[in-house]
Amino acid sequence: MTVRPPADVGMCLDEVDTPALIIDLDAFEANLSRMANASQAAGVRLRPHAKTHKCAIIALRQIALGAVGVCCQKVSEAEALVQGGVRDVLVTNEIVGKRKIAHLAALAREATLGVCVDDADNIAALDSAAAAAGATLDVLVEVDVGAHRCGVAPGAPALALARRIAAARALRFAGLQVYQGSAQHIRDFDERRAAIDAAVEAAGQTVALLSEHDLACRSVTGAGTGTFRFEASSGLYNELQAGSYIFMDADYAQNHGEGGGPFDEFQHSLFVYTTVMSTPEPGRAVVDAGLKASSVDSGLPTVHGMPGVDFVGASDEHGKLVFDAGETSLSLGDRLKLIPGHCDPTVNLYDWYVCVRDGRVQALWPIVARGALL
Amino acid sequence: MTVRPPADVGMCLDEVDTPALIIDLDAFEANLSRMANASQAAGVRLRPHAKTHKCAIIALRQIALGAVGVCCQKVSEAEALVQGGVRDVLVTNEIVGKRKIAHLAALAREATLGVCVDDADNIAALDSAAAAAGATLDVLVEVDVGAHRCGVAPGAPALALARRIAAARALRFAGLQVYQGSAQHIRDFDERRAAIDAAVEAAGQTVALLSEHDLACRSVTGAGTGTFRFEASSGLYNELQAGSYIFMDADYAQNHGEGGGPFDEFQHSLFVYTTVMSTPEPGRAVVDAGLKASSVDSGLPTVHGMPGVDFVGASDEHGKLVFDAGETSLSLGDRLKLIPGHCDPTVNLYDWYVCVRDGRVQALWPIVARGALL
Repeated sequence: MTVRPPADVGMCLDEVDTPALIIDLDAFEANLSRMANASQAAGVRLRPHAKTHKCAIIALRQIALGAVGVCCQKVSEAEALVQGGVRDVLVTNEIVGKRKIAHLAALAREATLGVCVDDADNIAALDSAAAAAGATLDVLVEVDVGAHRCGVAPGAPALALARRIAAARALRFAGLQVYQGSAQHIRDFDERRAAIDAAVEAAGQTVALLSEHDLACRSVTGAGTGTFRFEASSGLYNELQAGSYIFMDADYAQNHGEGGGPFDEFQHSLFVYTTVMSTPEPGRAVVDAGLKASSVDSGLPTVHGMPGVDFVGASDEHGKLVFDAGETSLSLGDRLKLIPGHCDPTVNLYDWYVCVRDGRVQALWPIVARGALL
Repeated sequence: MTVRPPADVGMCLDEVDTPALIIDLDAFEANLSRMANASQAAGVRLRPHAKTHKCAIIALRQIALGAVGVCCQKVSEAEALVQGGVRDVLVTNEIVGKRKIAHLAALAREATLGVCVDDADNIAALDSAAAAAGATLDVLVEVDVGAHRCGVAPGAPALALARRIAAARALRFAGLQVYQGSAQHIRDFDERRAAIDAAVEAAGQTVALLSEHDLACRSVTGAGTGTFRFEASSGLYNELQAGSYIFMDADYAQNHGEGGGPFDEFQHSLFVYTTVMSTPEPGRAVVDAGLKASSVDSGLPTVHGMPGVDFVGASDEHGKLVFDAGETSLSLGDRLKLIPGHCDPTVNLYDWYVCVRDGRVQALWPIVARGALL
C-alpha cells in the first residue's frame, strides 16, 4: 500500500517526518554527471542499473545525461519503469515462469526490452511468448565470469545458447551479459582489478568464439560501481551497468582506491533521516530507524557528520547509538543522517525520495518499483 | 507504490507468481487459537503485536478470538489499523516529533489509543497535542526491565513520570510497558525464564511503589512469543503482547523448549514462495528470492520440507541453494517454500499475503501498514 509522504515540497529539512529517505540533490547530481562523463570519455555506453533507485524520474535523468537506457532485475520493475516513460530496459536476469514471461513479452510491445538467459528451454519459452505477443525480445547470454551465481561457462556453452537465440523466431541475439558481481566489494584495489582482468579474459574468449561462428555481440555488458573503470578501459566491454554510484553506501565506502587510498570518486547522496526518540542514559540514545528503515545485510548504517557517534544495533523499529557523553550531547528530537549499509535494499523499504537542496525539500519522487518483486 | 498481487483467488498454488508471501491458513489459524486459548487459560488479556503482520484483517481475526486490541510501533501503523476497523491500539513505543504527535492525537478521537513514554518533556508534548485535538490518550510508562533500549529505570524514575501523566489534562495513566525484548531469543529455556524472572521482579517493585502513591497500573503489559508463558503465569503481568506466534520464523525455531526440547508449540505458517530460475551446475540452483524478498538480519531463510537443500547466500534478487546432486534434483521452474529468518521485516517487504488452503489461493490480504515508518 502506498504510505503518505513524510514531507511537503518547500518544507525545511528539520520539519520532515522521520524516518525518511533523503537525497542530497547536489551530491546526487554530481554523481550522475561524473559517471556520465566517465563513460563518454571511455567511449562506452552507460546503462545504469535501476534496481538501485527503482525510480522512473531518476532513470529519465540518467538518460537525459546520455545513458542509452537502464537495467533492472525483475519484470515488474521493467513495467514500472516503462509506465514511467523509459523506452529501453534490459532485464539483467533470467526470467522463469509462464506468467512472468507473458508479462515480459507484452511489455516488449511498448518498449525495447532485453533479457538474459542461461538455459535452452528458457530460450524456447521466451520465443514462444514473444511470438504469441507479436513482439521481439533482445536476448543476451549470461556468462559466469567469476560471480558463480547464474550464467553458463565461457566458451562453447555460451555459443550453444547464442545459436539457439539466433535461430529463434521472435528473439534477437544481443550479446553477452558478463557481470562480475562478486568483484564489486573486494576491498583491495589490485585484487579487484585482477578479478575483472579474469572476467575480461573469459568474456573475450567467448566473444571471439562467437565471432568465429558469425555471431556478433552487439552488447558486451556488465560492470558495477566498484569496478566500472576496469571494464570501461578493457577494450571489450561496450556497456556499463553501474547503479550504486548515484547514492553510494557504507559498504562501498569501505573499498580502497588505487594505492590503498580512499574509494571516493562518488559522494554519499542518500541518507536515512532519523530522530532521537529516547535518551535513556548518558552516552546512549535511541533513534526511530531500525531494520525496517535501513537494510543491515551488508552491515549497520553509519552516522553522517557526527564523529564519535556510533550506530551499534538495530531492532525492527529502533536504532541504538552510543557516544562519549563528555564530548557529545544528544537530546530528544535531535535529527541525524544515517548512511545506509547497503543502498539497494534500503531504497526498497520506502515509497518516496525526499529530495533536498539548501536545507529545503525541493521534490518528492515516487519509488515506483518499490516492492516490485515479480 | 502498491504492486499488483502475485495471484488470483481460486488459483492453484503452483500458478502463483513468485516471490510471494504465502500464509498456510490451517497452520496460521491453529496458531491464532492456541495463543487465544493460552491467554484465556492464564487469565490474562491478549493484545497481539501487529508490527508482525501489519494487516487489519489479521488484527480483526485476533480480536474476534478474544484479543482486547493490538499493539503497534508507529503512528502510521496505528492509522492504517484504525482505518481498517481496529478500535483499540497501543503504540508500544515513544512518539517524538510535533507532526507525529499531532497525528497520534488526532487518531485518538477515532479509537482508543495508548502510547508509551520515558521522558517528562515528551509527556508535556503529548498532553498539549491531545488537549488541542480534544482527545484523551492512554499513556504507559516504559520501564527498562532488561532490554536496555528505551525506558526509564524501575522504581523512582517510573513513579516520577507516572505522577506527571496522572496530573496531565488530556492523558490517562494506564500502567507500565515492561517488555523484555532481549529475552525472546535466548536459546536456553532456563536462561530465558531467568531473564523474565528478573523483569517480573523489577516490574513488581515498580507496581508496588506506584500503588503506595495511589497510582494503580491498569495494564502491566509486555511479553513476546519466546517468553509469554512466563509473563502469563507471573501473577503480575495482565496483558501479553506476543506477535510472531502467528507465523513463527527460522530464528524462533532455534529457541529451545523446556528440558532442551524443541520450541514448537506454534507452527511455521508464513513462507516465501520462490522459483528456481537457474541451475548453473549439478548441486547448485538459484531462486528468485533474495534480500528484497526475505530479510536476513537474523539469518538466512531455511528451505521448508526439502532436507538436504540449503539456502547458503542471498544477493539483492537471488538466493543460492546447494544440495547433493546425487540425492536431489532441482529443475528450472521448480517451486520451493522458504521459512524467513525473521518474519517482521520480511512481511514489511510485501504488499499482499497470499492465503492458501488445500493447495489453492483462498484470499489475498493487503498488508496495509507495509512501509508505515512514520
